[in-house]
Amino acid sequence: MNQNQPLGKPLNQSEVGLGEAKGALVIIGGAEDRWGDRQILREFIHLAGGRRSHIVVLTAATNEPEEAGETYIEVFRSLGAADVQVVDTRDQKDANRFDAVRAIGAATGIFFTGGSQARIVESIKGTLLEDVINKRYLEGIVVAGTSAGAAIMTEMMIVRGASDTSPRGDTVTLGPGMGFVRGMVIDQHFAQRGRLGRLIAALLLDPAVIGVGIDENTAIIVEGEEFRVLGEGSVTVVDESSTTYNNLDNIGGDDPMTVFGVKLHILVAGCRFNLHSKQPIAEGDRL
Amino acid sequence: MNQNQPLGKPLNQSEVGLGEAKGALVIIGGAEDRWGDRQILREFIHLAGGRRSHIVVLTAATNEPEEAGETYIEVFRSLGAADVQVVDTRDQKDANRFDAVRAIGAATGIFFTGGSQARIVESIKGTLLEDVINKRYLEGIVVAGTSAGAAIMTEMMIVRGASDTSPRGDTVTLGPGMGFVRGMVIDQHFAQRGRLGRLIAALLLDPAVIGVGIDENTAIIVEGEEFRVLGEGSVTVVDESSTTYNNLDNIGGDDPMTVFGVKLHILVAGCRFNLHSKQPIAEGDRL
Repeated sequence: MNQNQPLGKPLNQSEVGLGEAKGALVIIGGAEDRWGDRQILREFIHLAGGRRSHIVVLTAATNEPEEAGETYIEVFRSLGAADVQVVDTRDQKDANRFDAVRAIGAATGIFFTGGSQARIVESIKGTLLEDVINKRYLEGIVVAGTSAGAAIMTEMMIVRGASDTSPRGDTVTLGPGMGFVRGMVIDQHFAQRGRLGRLIAALLLDPAVIGVGIDENTAIIVEGEEFRVLGEGSVTVVDESSTTYNNLDNIGGDDPMTVFGVKLHILVAGCRFNLHSKQPIAEGDRL
Repeated sequence: MNQNQPLGKPLNQSEVGLGEAKGALVIIGGAEDRWGDRQILREFIHLAGGRRSHIVVLTAATNEPEEAGETYIEVFRSLGAADVQVVDTRDQKDANRFDAVRAIGAATGIFFTGGSQARIVESIKGTLLEDVINKRYLEGIVVAGTSAGAAIMTEMMIVRGASDTSPRGDTVTLGPGMGFVRGMVIDQHFAQRGRLGRLIAALLLDPAVIGVGIDENTAIIVEGEEFRVLGEGSVTVVDESSTTYNNLDNIGGDDPMTVFGVKLHILVAGCRFNLHSKQPIAEGDRL
């Protein structure tokens, strides 16, 4: 961990290729265990340096930042973090504050809580806080997020959309995310809320992108070109890059979408996925 | 329609190949429109002979046979059926009664209501009623069913299983269905109840079988080797015949299932699917 690095010219994340960042992403499908075995949060603290970790909890997403902040302070301290502090940003002014930027500059791991993904992007994107987060991630810190905090990890994110529905013209609203990883769209609470339809709909707009549906208390850990799966549930990878037909040109409003030849992989703990080759890897196998 | 055909030696449905039956199946994902446009039920009555149709409503699945019977009598009469009667079977004795068998012998269309799929199979399978239904279907009548009445159409059916979950060792319980069509497993209320996981789990046990997840107020109409889609929602076809990996040999209990390379097709009204070639067909296209 390269702590307390002086802040130079902020790097532009979008200029960086897949797998060029030295940091890791811990992307959690929501409702992660906080009081039991805490496998996922434990791994986050481990990756962030364990007893030498300096954690910043970002509560931008939530309406109840104090409650969320206190919860994660307690959890991360009990998991052995050297230091845990909360940075709350209600708007871009907060995200340009010196103390917020300095906190991230000294962090080895940052954690985006759940809430509304739009609120994270609105208060942080285009600010000094975004610059320093990108810089520190490229240098090697761990960026984690749960639920809304998971959605924002990608360049393009699902802002909102109906659950428990088949894909339709109006099923999903996309918008720019924080862009820590490209070529991927995340959905969370995936099986629990029946979100296959909205993920399929999102990908139809850009079939080169891989859809990653993460169940509750389940996470992917992105390092370089690969991610691995951790936790209780499944990760559903949706690949529309070789579909043979869709009706996107002929529909509008809430018309149902047709698409033939979607590829699906159900991954569980121990499985990996190569984002470059778009190939799943079973536990113990090499690509 | 070949009505009032004398009952000969019952044919054994399982001896009959795919597409050899002269009848049609109308398989409805539940919650079909009964009081508005009624596109699906209208098509059922049309296929059964319209103003010359003789309909039998089978209420075996439901705890409230009188209420369900009265509802469908009203709906089918208002759609122009010449005659609608209810056959209720609480047990196998009911299903061996002469008047029940005679009613089916004279029917041009029969309709299985929703409720519990196990109750249909328990009271009808192995009875004279099953024999006459099979015989009449092979001769050309229309067999329709909604929800539980849809599940029972196949040789192997989903008896019960969790919704809104990823596939796990204990997600789904299979059992023999009525077997009007082979090589297929049906699931209903599909998107509405987030049932992808349980359908994927069901197919892992027999990957040659095609999974057909039917949304509410949506139906497939099986004629010969093909089905076509009708109604408001989508039909999700799940094909596990060319998956590249699964962990079925290594899991038990409620362990999560891994499977790589599932193929998925989302079909909407107007699309067709060839059960022999396992190929979807877009509206207006030929195979």
